[in-house]
Amino acid sequence: MTNPTAAMLVIGDEILSGRTRESNMHYLAGELTRIGIALREVRVVADVHADIVAAVRELSARYAHLFTSGGIGPTHDDITADAVAEAMGARIGPRADAMALLQAHYDRAGLPFNEARQRMARIPDGATLIENPVSAAPGFTLGNVHVMAGVPNIFQAMVASVLPGLTGGPPLLSQSLRVNRGEGEIAEAFGALAAEFPDLSMGSYPFIQNGAHGTNLVVRGTDPARIDAAMVRLTQLFG
Amino acid sequence: MTNPTAAMLVIGDEILSGRTRESNMHYLAGELTRIGIALREVRVVADVHADIVAAVRELSARYAHLFTSGGIGPTHDDITADAVAEAMGARIGPRADAMALLQAHYDRAGLPFNEARQRMARIPDGATLIENPVSAAPGFTLGNVHVMAGVPNIFQAMVASVLPGLTGGPPLLSQSLRVNRGEGEIAEAFGALAAEFPDLSMGSYPFIQNGAHGTNLVVRGTDPARIDAAMVRLTQLFG
Repeated sequence: MTNPTAAMLVIGDEILSGRTRESNMHYLAGELTRIGIALREVRVVADVHADIVAAVRELSARYAHLFTSGGIGPTHDDITADAVAEAMGARIGPRADAMALLQAHYDRAGLPFNEARQRMARIPDGATLIENPVSAAPGFTLGNVHVMAGVPNIFQAMVASVLPGLTGGPPLLSQSLRVNRGEGEIAEAFGALAAEFPDLSMGSYPFIQNGAHGTNLVVRGTDPARIDAAMVRLTQLFG
Repeated sequence: MTNPTAAMLVIGDEILSGRTRESNMHYLAGELTRIGIALREVRVVADVHADIVAAVRELSARYAHLFTSGGIGPTHDDITADAVAEAMGARIGPRADAMALLQAHYDRAGLPFNEARQRMARIPDGATLIENPVSAAPGFTLGNVHVMAGVPNIFQAMVASVLPGLTGGPPLLSQSLRVNRGEGEIAEAFGALAAEFPDLSMGSYPFIQNGAHGTNLVVRGTDPARIDAAMVRLTQLFG
C-alpha cells in the first residue's frame, strides 16, 4: 500500500513581503504525515489571479490532494475562491447554505451581514463546505482541492474537519539519533547504510551547540520493523 | 523603474515531513524587500533529483533571480549542486579553489578532509563561490541561481554576501494601520480606496485579540508620497 500524495498552496502577499511568518505549512505537514499522506510540494504565490489559477491547475493535476491556505475573507484582496473555480472549470456564485450560516453568525453577533461579508458565501458549484467554527465563513472542497483560511487557528480547525474524511496510507514513521559528530565525519558510513535500506529515507541535519558540531540522523518509512532494524545499525555505528 | 523579481526554492524532506519548521523564507523575504527585489514565489520540494531539476529550470527562467536553500552538505541526501548543474546545463566536478578552502578549514580544525567532505567542493563549471564564514563549505551562483545552505545561520551569512552584488529596484515600502474593527466592516470602503490607488498594493489581515476582532491594513509600494497619501485617507476612514 502506498501513500497518497499532497501539495499545499499558500496564497498571500504578506508572506512574500516578509511581513508575516508562514506557519500553516509546518502544521499541515505534521498532520498529513500522521495520517499517512505524503506532502510532496509547497508553493507560496502572491494575490494574483493568474498565478493562483496556474498553480491550482498544476498541483491539483499532479498530486492526489491540494490544500490551499489564505485569501477567502471579505476584502478585495481575497480572490482564492474565484481563482480555484476558474482553475477547476466550475461556476461560482453565492450559495444558499453558506449565506444562511453566515447570516445566522452575524445575527448572533449583532453585526450587519453586508455586501463584503456576503462575498464569503461565494462557493464554486459542486463544492462541499468546510466548517469554520471560529468565524463561520466556510472553506470548501472542490474535486481534490481543499480551500481553507490563512488565519492559523481557523486553518487548523478546518484541517481538523477535512482530514478525517480522507483516506491516508500507512502512517509515515520516523526515528532519529542525535550524534555528537559533524556531518562530514559520519557521511560515508551513513550513506552506505542508506543504500542498504532503499525502502527507507534517511536524512542528516547538522547543528552547532556550544561551539561543537553535531548531527541529527533521521530514518523515515512506513514499516516499523525496518525502521527499528536501521536504528539498531545506526546506533552500532554512531551511538 | 521597476523591481527585479525573484523566487526561492527550499529543498528538504525534513520541511515536508513536518520535522523542521522552515525559517529561511521569512528571512530572505525581508532582506529582498529591503533592497527592492520582489519575491514572487516560493517552492518547497523533496530531496528528489528530478523534482529539483524541474523546479530550478522553471523558476530560473521565469524570474530574474532564484535563491535555493538546503542540500549542499556532505551526506548522500545533499544533491542540490548536481541538480542545479543539470538544470542549467553545466558540468560539475571538484573545483580547486573550493578544495583549497575546505582543506584549510579542516586542517585548522584538526579534522580529516575525507571523501564526504570533498563532495562539498563539487561546483558547477562557470559558477562563482559564495563565502561561508561559519563552516567553510561554499555556496555558489550559477547564472541567476544562488545556491545556499539550509542551516539558518549559514543561509543568512550567505545572503548577506550575495545581496550587495545584486541590483535592486526602489525599496519596497509599507505602512500599516491597526483598526479595532472586523474585516467585514471595513472591506467595502477599503476596497474602494484600493481601487483609487492602483499603483499601490493594499492588503487586510484580520486578527482576534481578547475575543475582539481587529484588522491590520497594509499599504505597499515604492513611492513614499503615494503611500503617505493613502495612509492619510485610511486614517480618515478608519482611524
